[in-house]
Amino acid sequence: MERTKEQRMLKIPPRKIMTPGPVEVDPRVLRAMSMPILGQFDPAFTQIMNEVMVMLREAFQTKNHWAYPIDGTSRAGLEAVIASLIEPGDRMLVPIYGRFGDLFVEIGERYGAEIHTMSCPWGTVFDPQDVINEIKKVRPKVVALVHGETSTGRMQPLAEIGHACRELDTLLVVDAVATFGGADVRVDDWCLDAVIGGAQKCLSVPSGIAPITYNERIEKVILSRKKVERGIATESDKKVASAMPIRSNYFDLSQLQDYWSERRLNHHTEATSMEYALHEGLHLVLDEGLEQRFARHLLNEKALMAGIEAMGLDLFGDPDCKMPTVTCVSVPVGVNADDVRNVLLDQFGIEIAGSFGSLQGKIWRIGTMGYGCRKDNVLAVLAGLEASLIRCGVTVCRGEALQAAMDVYDEAAD
Amino acid sequence: MERTKEQRMLKIPPRKIMTPGPVEVDPRVLRAMSMPILGQFDPAFTQIMNEVMVMLREAFQTKNHWAYPIDGTSRAGLEAVIASLIEPGDRMLVPIYGRFGDLFVEIGERYGAEIHTMSCPWGTVFDPQDVINEIKKVRPKVVALVHGETSTGRMQPLAEIGHACRELDTLLVVDAVATFGGADVRVDDWCLDAVIGGAQKCLSVPSGIAPITYNERIEKVILSRKKVERGIATESDKKVASAMPIRSNYFDLSQLQDYWSERRLNHHTEATSMEYALHEGLHLVLDEGLEQRFARHLLNEKALMAGIEAMGLDLFGDPDCKMPTVTCVSVPVGVNADDVRNVLLDQFGIEIAGSFGSLQGKIWRIGTMGYGCRKDNVLAVLAGLEASLIRCGVTVCRGEALQAAMDVYDEAAD
Repeated sequence: MERTKEQRMLKIPPRKIMTPGPVEVDPRVLRAMSMPILGQFDPAFTQIMNEVMVMLREAFQTKNHWAYPIDGTSRAGLEAVIASLIEPGDRMLVPIYGRFGDLFVEIGERYGAEIHTMSCPWGTVFDPQDVINEIKKVRPKVVALVHGETSTGRMQPLAEIGHACRELDTLLVVDAVATFGGADVRVDDWCLDAVIGGAQKCLSVPSGIAPITYNERIEKVILSRKKVERGIATESDKKVASAMPIRSNYFDLSQLQDYWSERRLNHHTEATSMEYALHEGLHLVLDEGLEQRFARHLLNEKALMAGIEAMGLDLFGDPDCKMPTVTCVSVPVGVNADDVRNVLLDQFGIEIAGSFGSLQGKIWRIGTMGYGCRKDNVLAVLAGLEASLIRCGVTVCRGEALQAAMDVYDEAAD
Repeated sequence: MERTKEQRMLKIPPRKIMTPGPVEVDPRVLRAMSMPILGQFDPAFTQIMNEVMVMLREAFQTKNHWAYPIDGTSRAGLEAVIASLIEPGDRMLVPIYGRFGDLFVEIGERYGAEIHTMSCPWGTVFDPQDVINEIKKVRPKVVALVHGETSTGRMQPLAEIGHACRELDTLLVVDAVATFGGADVRVDDWCLDAVIGGAQKCLSVPSGIAPITYNERIEKVILSRKKVERGIATESDKKVASAMPIRSNYFDLSQLQDYWSERRLNHHTEATSMEYALHEGLHLVLDEGLEQRFARHLLNEKALMAGIEAMGLDLFGDPDCKMPTVTCVSVPVGVNADDVRNVLLDQFGIEIAGSFGSLQGKIWRIGTMGYGCRKDNVLAVLAGLEASLIRCGVTVCRGEALQAAMDVYDEAAD
């Protein structure tokens, strides 16, 4: 019996998480999560909801009215947007350059979209003009595009495509889960119609809440499908109910935006503690300042890359479209990628990631995201990786990585 | 600028939340949520996931293998089960005795079910034999039934219906969101096929995670619809992919159960901090003991009811099927229900709830759930309610409520 109780104790070993998410959470966010619960319609809580909306707009660099979180993990945000836009038979174009493009296809298919895809080799991104040409050919209702593809560490330029979508009257939905809060995501300037950000990546909030924003072009589609649920619909709600409502209740943005409006339509019970975490996480982002934050991510990326190369390892992928928040390292021929990761975790408590599909076993992925994107972490992961490689019998340039990284930091400090 | 920063500070006023959820969270659960993040495939984290499964089985009183949470609010749990079972055209019977029956209809409709409903007056529940007769007539694939209907404060007996469903080869899905952890929910003894529990109610964990359990009858349907998503499906996954996959990716239990198995199929990133909270919340439930916990809920309910009646107010609804965790009070004729609630919140920091639909403005609902189900809270809500009623000009039997409640506690202590 005592043994059973012992087993039930939460055991959290110390870790440095240098994966592309989930990453270390700022202690101030953790502290915010330990604040007491408020009722969902308590004015003190709806005030917090409103503040989250204001801060999300600022972080998304948008004047959109709608900017609020979905209560679920990042892919809940993706599914909420796709579910609310796609009616069976709608054409959807998905340019795929890694695993998370496939996820858009998967979600779109399940909601009945007529899917069109195009692809380019993993490790590269699309020439925007190629995407625009395909849009002109397919004439989709929705183009779904990943901004930062963590599976390959690449980042797709969006501005040209965004402007073309506006001209061609196509809706552009962007997965910015892995870049939001760590790299520039200019929702308005780039003409992005709906954008999904991540919590557990550059925002450094735990997984379980997915911030989204969308403009009036998206809202128009959503409102055309509005149907307030039974049990709370008023007579006037019933009169205007759509005959083709959104297929999911949980992900029905037409109801969710009423919950996030002054109407405070009862839908789910907002995830109180996750809301506190998001509030505090956004607070920290805006206090630091977007430009300063993006510059911090670039500096730590630079130091990490310098260390990796000084060690004698190769970076994977086209450098011209590298994500600043994820660095992919080619696994040397003959080396078992997981063996090295296991030594790094077991001996040093440092976690880095492998990848998926055709890249499985071929690359390691190191995240420098949010609160975890720090000098001490970069130096620790370089030291640990070098020692783990040596432990696994791999030949590396010993002692060079940390020197190269420190050089980068010293130069920046000058 | 300083003012903006000030506005962004999280402000959480002290509150006693005596609604039917979300309720006060045990400080030990809040503390667990402030523990550092672990990576989703870190063995230390998958160990926590496994422990959650073990504890969920115990709390659900089941030998089911599958017992794990959905990352979303309670209705995410409901939708995950319905989405995974219902194919377009499937017959689904929903006996409705309050708002949350309507929610089952709503979700089922959106997934294409042929819905059949039956209803009884709000404030009562069904004679099990009437439900069984309807099942025999309709022959549905799924019967969806609410165990504790918070909108009316009633609890539907399930055992007879469960046994009949087994005989008639119908799947019984039960919404135990408001009873799980506070009243008896005997999944195996009552032959419940799938059950959804709540976090932010009797478990006293914040909203945002929804524990579910289901048996092999449910699993068989789910597996028949299995399709592993693009981007991570192996060749053998592709060979056996269903032609009629579950319509939601996020709520696809066939993939989720692979994530919760030794395969650890990559799906979403488990909501780390909410998982810690659920772990700690279950730990506290099992440490207290289910029987002791249910008895505690009954005692506080008894004291609350005694106080309410001593004050001269009437309890709403059929006493024979009253939920032990929610007490509904009839609003005296001519009294504005919200005015009284507002005085109670503004002056005392105590929150109680109104209700929905035809009961809006007609009843107050007071929750005695989980950590909030305590003597000090019951006495505080009685004192505050009496004073608020007097403040609103309502005539009550002054000074009697607290005496009656204390009598109940004293008797129990003897």
